[in-house]
This record gives sequence, structure tokens and C-alpha cells, in this order.
Amino acid sequence: MSGNPRRCVCPGSYDPITNGHLDVIARASALYDEVVVAILHNTAKQGTFSPQERIDLIEAATADLPNVRVLAFGDQLIVDVCRELDAAVLVKGIRGLTDYEYELPMALMNREMTGLETLLLPGDPAYTHYSSSLIRLIAQRGADVRAMVPKPVLQPLLDKLSGEFRAR
Amino acid sequence: MSGNPRRCVCPGSYDPITNGHLDVIARASALYDEVVVAILHNTAKQGTFSPQERIDLIEAATADLPNVRVLAFGDQLIVDVCRELDAAVLVKGIRGLTDYEYELPMALMNREMTGLETLLLPGDPAYTHYSSSLIRLIAQRGADVRAMVPKPVLQPLLDKLSGEFRAR
Amino acid sequence: MSGNPRRCVCPGSYDPITNGHLDVIARASALYDEVVVAILHNTAKQGTFSPQERIDLIEAATADLPNVRVLAFGDQLIVDVCRELDAAVLVKGIRGLTDYEYELPMALMNREMTGLETLLLPGDPAYTHYSSSLIRLIAQRGADVRAMVPKPVLQPLLDKLSGEFRAR
Amino acid sequence: MSGNPRRCVCPGSYDPITNGHLDVIARASALYDEVVVAILHNTAKQGTFSPQERIDLIEAATADLPNVRVLAFGDQLIVDVCRELDAAVLVKGIRGLTDYEYELPMALMNREMTGLETLLLPGDPAYTHYSSSLIRLIAQRGADVRAMVPKPVLQPLLDKLSGEFRAR
Amino acid sequence: MSGNPRRCVCPGSYDPITNGHLDVIARASALYDEVVVAILHNTAKQGTFSPQERIDLIEAATADLPNVRVLAFGDQLIVDVCRELDAAVLVKGIRGLTDYEYELPMALMNREMTGLETLLLPGDPAYTHYSSSLIRLIAQRGADVRAMVPKPVLQPLLDKLSGEFRAR
Amino acid sequence: MSGNPRRCVCPGSYDPITNGHLDVIARASALYDEVVVAILHNTAKQGTFSPQERIDLIEAATADLPNVRVLAFGDQLIVDVCRELDAAVLVKGIRGLTDYEYELPMALMNREMTGLETLLLPGDPAYTHYSSSLIRLIAQRGADVRAMVPKPVLQPLLDKLSGEFRAR
Repeated sequence: MSGNPRRCVCPGSYDPITNGHLDVIARASALYDEVVVAILHNTAKQGTFSPQERIDLIEAATADLPNVRVLAFGDQLIVDVCRELDAAVLVKGIRGLTDYEYELPMALMNREMTGLETLLLPGDPAYTHYSSSLIRLIAQRGADVRAMVPKPVLQPLLDKLSGEFRAR
Repeated sequence: MSGNPRRCVCPGSYDPITNGHLDVIARASALYDEVVVAILHNTAKQGTFSPQERIDLIEAATADLPNVRVLAFGDQLIVDVCRELDAAVLVKGIRGLTDYEYELPMALMNREMTGLETLLLPGDPAYTHYSSSLIRLIAQRGADVRAMVPKPVLQPLLDKLSGEFRAR
Repeated sequence: MSGNPRRCVCPGSYDPITNGHLDVIARASALYDEVVVAILHNTAKQGTFSPQERIDLIEAATADLPNVRVLAFGDQLIVDVCRELDAAVLVKGIRGLTDYEYELPMALMNREMTGLETLLLPGDPAYTHYSSSLIRLIAQRGADVRAMVPKPVLQPLLDKLSGEFRAR
Repeated sequence: MSGNPRRCVCPGSYDPITNGHLDVIARASALYDEVVVAILHNTAKQGTFSPQERIDLIEAATADLPNVRVLAFGDQLIVDVCRELDAAVLVKGIRGLTDYEYELPMALMNREMTGLETLLLPGDPAYTHYSSSLIRLIAQRGADVRAMVPKPVLQPLLDKLSGEFRAR
Repeated sequence: MSGNPRRCVCPGSYDPITNGHLDVIARASALYDEVVVAILHNTAKQGTFSPQERIDLIEAATADLPNVRVLAFGDQLIVDVCRELDAAVLVKGIRGLTDYEYELPMALMNREMTGLETLLLPGDPAYTHYSSSLIRLIAQRGADVRAMVPKPVLQPLLDKLSGEFRAR
Repeated sequence: MSGNPRRCVCPGSYDPITNGHLDVIARASALYDEVVVAILHNTAKQGTFSPQERIDLIEAATADLPNVRVLAFGDQLIVDVCRELDAAVLVKGIRGLTDYEYELPMALMNREMTGLETLLLPGDPAYTHYSSSLIRLIAQRGADVRAMVPKPVLQPLLDKLSGEFRAR
């Protein structure tokens, strides 16, 4: 193990941040001196929001959490990101078995590569059925998603989705 | 909760209907006054069968179940479909853990949005290894799928798949 | 299939009823003409509450649900109970994978024996971490369980547990 | 959330400590200022080792980890233990899905009661098939368990099990 | 790895053999030169059938499978049993996730101890809801279990269960 | 059941072979007279390595296992492959629940089609977090994957991935 154990990283694609993500970040911010929200994106694939837009939305949503920092990383290994950031641990929310099965091999791989540890935080049951992709889908089909995303995300999400319609 | 609790909806893509789907529909038809088989399709993606073809095949397969109605819906939320149909409940067959993990967040989301309830019906073990996609794949590679799809589906499926080959 | 499809049975040991149980019963009562809460108990094992006490607590907790009836059955098969009650379906809340894996073979067995169907209702996430045994345990060790059980259950539970201590 | 986020508790029955337990404790000791190994025991049930014996074995096994402390608690809620110890977080190793399903409701319950957080640490695959009960069983039947328990545990375990035979 | 790879062992408690067990044994007998059905029993616990009775029932049920042999082992490790029998592999039917999670640590432990391999055979869906304990329970409560156990087991099971009633 | 029970097939896409694959093949080679590694590929999709390249890499990695043969099959059903090869059984490594849930319906389908049996071999925990796709991903992003693939695979993998970059 190496890196500062008082600094944790919350990795994800955050396209966009949901209330489930926000809950994990807020809880991590109470447990660590500093939380780095690391937006990982594949430069070959375009998401709904650009990396910079995602940063802006997370920063707006976490404005009251002074020890949270937001950064974006394209095509980089999370172990390299953590080495760069001098962070010893990833904190990931898990919403159920599928998340657990998905996170497990990556956690073991990361530990094998650099000793980076992954701590899994059971998601708050109020949010475990939320995912960015499901929220994008139902918002696009007209559902009211106010309860599912942080307030600063709502209007940009609706704009973006109507923009997607126009772009067709 | 709102909607008629004597009317249930069995949603799916049914591309095409399998004997596993038919088993769920038939069992639901014995438990409810009316069953609406709701074909949900994404208008941006083309399936193997068109929505109208899927309707025709399900109607043929359920000809002896007088309280079953078949409808297709493009890019619509199932909660809106159920509101339109005045149905209080979805009935979904589950074939295993993967289905359970997939259905759970959607069921919770639907309940959060409109109070629509989802009842999960354990699939008959004789059919739990069937899925439309696996049947399409093995039929295309020459397997005998007679035992896996309702009788009216067999010939259209073989025609469609050979048509797919011709279309290449 | 046989039995009245408008009458459902919610089986369980209910020792005692929790807010998770109550949520399932209330949701079932909106979907069926009549709900029979069937307390199944093994006459060779003594629970915390007697079958009659459990009936009383459930009746108190469901006093505002006019179509709910409560009965207790010792050492009887649920399929026989449902035949007696002329009910076509069991409705069971499931709180997660463990419940699903536990319910599945019993549901298939019941269907094989008499055609009795089991419909699984995804538990409300607010309650899926509650179980009678966990609540008894933490109440006994002094936890505040007011949010976890229906109001009429609270005092009897505390009395019973302090009685258990005295009985040692 | 309350309590010191730099102090974590690793709860368990540790009857006796295995190499899997030791791995989790050692990894936690690198991530926190202080780790309290909390032996939870039911005073109504006798284990293979007494609480004091379990303390002695864990202390011997963790002698080279200066920030690890070992304590035993009878019939106490872990949330009360953590309040007493002023610790903000539990760290628990998980060996697979069964552990996950078992830990989840307890983690949610603990969070509901006092805000205590639980972080799940994926077990090292080299040890995930070890459990105290399986090791006791195979040791009793003559298996060589040297690779499965910390060195100071081996002889006491063999003595204890032969003592169990004598006691019959 | 050591031992004869043409000889496999099917371990279990077989109290009594079910049609699910028989299916696994029959399928294994088509894949190996010899199948040893190994009844493992804990000499400190009494089952419904004695080890000798279980042997007799399995022998009757497998009378038409000439390469199946039945033996009972008390308080022995399966790895020692396999060494004694010069068998290189265990074949175990799995009925679902719960079986898989239960078998996995034991399979890894056995491989660590002696190199003994475990091959998991997916249970036939017609039988995956059967277990000896569930069949005993429902038979005791009057269910017709003819379809669930091999023919030679039926009468002895009914006799045994009525004997249990008399013994009370 | 038909086919030679002394010959097993290990199917997969092997794009490329990992140390996890190699472990399963080597263990199967100790249990069967002959192991056929069957590379299944979809002729409509291009992988990272061509079928012939995958054959070459597996042959190099299994050079010391004289009873292993490597063949590639495009768009063919595995049941037809096994009939052609006169093999009675598939041996598949499983790395966790996700693999189990994926393999189960295919195993049941194959058995339904021709009686072909599937035996699931629990993966060695040292390798269960490896997959070809995860290894390709992290290698492309600069990770050291020497411990994850057989020696003859390392250089071709690095060449191929740098070639992919050049091809863009």
C-alpha cells in the first residue's frame, strides 16, 4: 500500500451525477480528509455530457462539501490516477449484487497492480435503483426525475436531452 | 396505487415470443380478468421482427386465451402505458438471478414514479434457459428450435433468419 | 390452477410483524379483494410470541385495512391452507437475493403439488433490512426499534423480551 | 455520522482468527490510525475458544501491527461498542456473495440506528475459502491447517480440538 | 492432482436420495468408468435414515447402473475418502446460486489440501427445487412425494416419518 | 449422452488466452485423455487477434501439455463442434456468480439439444479476476500484464495493441 490513506478517490463516469452518487460522495467526505471525485471517460466514446460539463455539475452539486475536489481523466488507469493524486483508497458505492460482481475483479486487479485498496460502501436504499443511464432514459421519455438528480443537474439534463432530439 | 387491479400488463420485447413468454402469459391469464401483452420497442433500433409481426405471432400463439390482448408501444415509459391501459400491475416472469437483478431497479423506479406495482412470477424450470436472443442465435446456426417457440412462430422465424442471411 | 384469483395469502411466521411485513400486506390489499395473512408455525418449536399473540398484533397493525384477515396454521402445508381458503395465489415480499433463493424452490414445489402460484413483490427499500429475528435481537440489546415495527407491536415486544430475561 | 473517522473497528467472532481475518486487519491497519478488533460473543453460547483466549490469539497474531487493539464484547450492539470506542466506521472483509448478503442488512441497520458506516473490503482471493468453522471442522478431522491460521493459533487449536474429543 | 481420473465420487448426506440426486449419479455414471456414491455423515448427529439404510436405498435406486458403488463414511474428510478410493474428482450437482456459494469454498479447500478437483454439474431443472429436507418436511405433512424420490424410497420414507410421529 | 467421455472440449473466444484459461486447460488435461481447446468466433465481428493467431498463442502456451489440441470454429454451435469431435463433455472454468449465471442457460440448452454435458470447474482464485477484455484494456493503458498472460502472449499482445493505436 502506498499513498495517503486520508485521501480517497470516488471514481465513475457520472454522466450525469445522480442523487445516489451524491450520497456516496457526501458520506465519503465525512470519513476522509479529502475526496477526489474522478470522472473516468473513454475519449473514443462520446457521452451525454462532456467531461467539463460533468465536472461543472458535480461541483455545483457538492458546493457545500469543502473537502471534495472534482477532476476528469481520459483513457487512464485508475491506479495511475491514484498514484498521481497520492490517494491510498477508492471508495465505491454498491447498489446490489450486480455492482458487487462488477467491482470485485477490478478491485482485485487494482490491488494486484499497485496495492490500491477499494472500500465498498453499501448504497443508501433510497437511491439504489438510480443509475445515470436509467435516469437519462426515463427523462428522455418524459418522466419527472426531480427526485433522482441533484438540483443543479435537472435543467441541464432536460436541455441536453431535448438537444439530443433536435440533433437527430 | 391506481388503475384496475384486475388488469395486468406483461411487458417485453418479444422478438419473438418464446415458450417461456407464453407460459408466463398463460399463467397470468388465469390470475387476472385481462392480460395486456405490451411489446416495448425502441424506434431507433430494428429488431428481427417488426412490431406488427410480433403482435401477429403473439396473437397466434395466444389464440386460445380469450382474455389476452396484444399491443405495441414505441419509446414509451411502461408507467405511461399502464396509465393509458388503466392497469395496476405488471407481471414479469423471472428466470434467475440475472433477471431479478435487472427487474428490481426498474420495478422500484416504476413504483416511485406512479405507484405501479410489479409482481415477479418464477419461471417454469422447463423454460428458464430460453431467451429470444439465444433462440435466434441457435436457430440461425441450424439448431432445431421446435420445442422452444410456440408453433406459429417456427416457420416465420426460420424464414426471417434465412432472409437475414440473404440480406447480407 | 384452482382457487379464487381475487383472494391472496401472505404466509410467514410473523414473530412479530415488522413494518416490512406490513408494507407487503398493505400493498397486496390494494391489489386483491381479500388478503389472508397466514401465520405458519411449527408446533414443536416455541417462538417469541404465541400464534394467538401474533394474530392479535397483526390485527391491530392492519386495523385500517378492511379486506385483511389473519389466521394461524400449525404444521400445515401452505398448499393445503390455500385450498381450504380457496385462494389461488401467494404474495411474498422479497428483500434481496437470499429471499429469492429461499422462496424459489418452495414456489416451484407448491406449483408442482397443486398449481398454487407465488407472486414475488419487491420489498420497499426502506424496509428490506428489517427482519423479525434481527429486530428481536437488537431490541433485546437495548436498541430503539420504534421505526421498525408497527406501533401496536412496540410495547408487547419490549415486555416479551424483558420477560425472556426474567425467565432465564 | 459521529465518532473518529481515523479509528475503525473490525468486528467478528474470531473463534479462532484465521489468515483471512489477519489479512483484513493488516490491510485496515495501513488505512487507519487505529484498528480495534472487536470480538463479539453471545454469552449464552460457548464457543471453541473463550473470549480471553481469542484476545490472546489475535494479540499474538497481530504483534507486529502496533496500531491494532483487541477487545471482547458480550451481548452488545456493535453500534454501542463503536460509540464507546469513538469509532466512525466498521471495516469488514467480504469473501463472496453470501457474506455480502449477510452484511448488507446489518450495515443498513447500523447506519439507521446511529449513522455508523460500514466499509466492505474485498477479501484476498488467497483466503476467501477460509472460515473459522470450516477450519475447525477439517482440523478436527485431521487436516493440516498450517497454511490457514496465523502461526500462534496452530498449537492452541490442535490442543483445543483434542480437548473437545476428551471432553465427550 | 493424483488419483484415477476415470473414477469419480458423488458425495452427500442422501437422507434420503431424491430424484435430483439420482439424476446427477446417472449422468456421472455415463461420464466415468466408476462412480462412488459417498454418504458422509456426522456420527454425533442422527439423521432420519441410518447410514446403512441410506446405502440400501441408493443401491435399490441405482440397481440398473452397474458402475455405481455406494459407501458410507462417518466424520471423515472427503479428501481422505477420495485418496482411499483412488478417485481424482468429485462430481456435485448444483441447483442454484446457494449451492454454488456453498460448494465453492469447500472445492477450493479440497484442492488446496490434496489437489482433489470438484466438477459442478448443473442440475436438471426438473429437479432443482427438490432437497431431502424439503421432501421430508412436506411428506411428514401429508404431501404426495411420489414424483420426487426414486420408487424404492417412497414406502420406507413414509414408514420412517410415521415412526417419527410414534416415537414422540 | 453420446460421444467419447474421455475427450473434453474447453470452448471460449480466447482473445487472447489468459493465465486463467491456461489453468483450466491444464487441470482439464490431467482429468481427460484429450482436451480440445475450441476457439469460437463470430465471423461477422473482428477480434483483437485473428482465429489463427489465437490458435498459435494457445499452442505456444500449452506446448508442454501433449494431450491438448487447438481448433477454431466460426459461427458454429458448440453441440455440432462436439459431435464432430466425438466429445461428450464441455469443461468450463467459472470465476464467479456472473459466469455461473451466463453458463447455466447455455449448458441447459446444449443438454436439451444433444445431451452434451457441461462440467463447471471452479476457477483458481489466483486468476478469477482476469478476463481477456480487462487485460486488453489495462495493457492498452500501459499496465504491466506479465503476470496475467502466458509468456508467449505478452509480446504479441503489446504489438497488437500498439498496432491498434497506429491503425486509428
